[in-house]
Amino acid sequence: MWMAELAARSGYPVPTIKYYLREGLLPPGEATGATRARYDESHVRRLRLIRALTEVAGLRLETVGQVLEDLAVADSWHEAVGSAHTRLAEHDGPPATAESLARADDLLQRQGWDLAPDSPHRTVLARSLDALAALDHPMSDELLDLYAAAMRQVAAHEVDAVRSPDREASAEAAVIGTVLQEPVLLAVRRIAQENASREREG
Amino acid sequence: MWMAELAARSGYPVPTIKYYLREGLLPPGEATGATRARYDESHVRRLRLIRALTEVAGLRLETVGQVLEDLAVADSWHEAVGSAHTRLAEHDGPPATAESLARADDLLQRQGWDLAPDSPHRTVLARSLDALAALDHPMSDELLDLYAAAMRQVAAHEVDAVRSPDREASAEAAVIGTVLQEPVLLAVRRIAQENASREREG
Repeated sequence: MWMAELAARSGYPVPTIKYYLREGLLPPGEATGATRARYDESHVRRLRLIRALTEVAGLRLETVGQVLEDLAVADSWHEAVGSAHTRLAEHDGPPATAESLARADDLLQRQGWDLAPDSPHRTVLARSLDALAALDHPMSDELLDLYAAAMRQVAAHEVDAVRSPDREASAEAAVIGTVLQEPVLLAVRRIAQENASREREG
Repeated sequence: MWMAELAARSGYPVPTIKYYLREGLLPPGEATGATRARYDESHVRRLRLIRALTEVAGLRLETVGQVLEDLAVADSWHEAVGSAHTRLAEHDGPPATAESLARADDLLQRQGWDLAPDSPHRTVLARSLDALAALDHPMSDELLDLYAAAMRQVAAHEVDAVRSPDREASAEAAVIGTVLQEPVLLAVRRIAQENASREREG
């Protein structure tokens, strides 16, 4: 397809697509002359992934470039999705206490879970536990294990839903799933809480 | 206790406490002279609740005042907690489509759940479903039901954990639980996803 069709298919204006080409976020099309090139489905998919990363996940273009580089060198589907996932996490924040990091590790051990050495999720979890403890509402191990059991079932289904032989499509689905499904889960939690509260009231 | 002790116990500076007294967010103490008054545990608890609502939930003082008014007139523990809960929700946002509102209602019906007429959670849920559909990643009813089943178990435990004969303490725990436990749940979800993804990779 020509540039005009790529613009129509992706919803991006032509100048933006040209900018992404110059920045290397979008691979060049197949040249058919000095100034014309043809594009294919891989370009449409790449633009969808860029949209998911920028508009949905709120990543800066520089970080998007890193995710795309990770994707290119990933050895496996798991690694490709994992790198997109890791870039999404909030790396900035106060350091977690040793106590909360130990509690996170205990949870991982109890659940038989493992994390990549560079995974930010252990720190994010520990930091959240610190915030609760600081307000005199520490979270019990019992509730942590309940969260883990609930999320184990959910995650297995979610991961199956985003698996695809196409790494870019998988990464896009993982990004969208991580970011946009979170508000759904939280809304359902509040609905469940409202109903559990009413039941307890009798 | 005198004002100085209330300040030390609550962690709030005296001028802030005086401001809350003037604004009616904090009930007056028991006057012991023209300019002195004694305060008790109810004042410490009220200041903790104000802290949870402002610093944790990020509510403006005006909204905090509304939550406290709701609390004063609530007929039940469930109503007191529910009103704090409702004030926390994001009421601003694009209107949800009729289609997504119908899907939210279907979920409520399938789960045997009910919501208060002014509950914002139905709209918040529908709006999140719209966002997913707009990016060609509609959420399946199967996954919605899986979220519901998972959150049903979690919510029952959470609601039991915050129940207290003291309404202010319950509301404070509900606010903190809603806002500060969410990042814990989401971190555990990402950890579960990373592990489910590795398992699938084999």
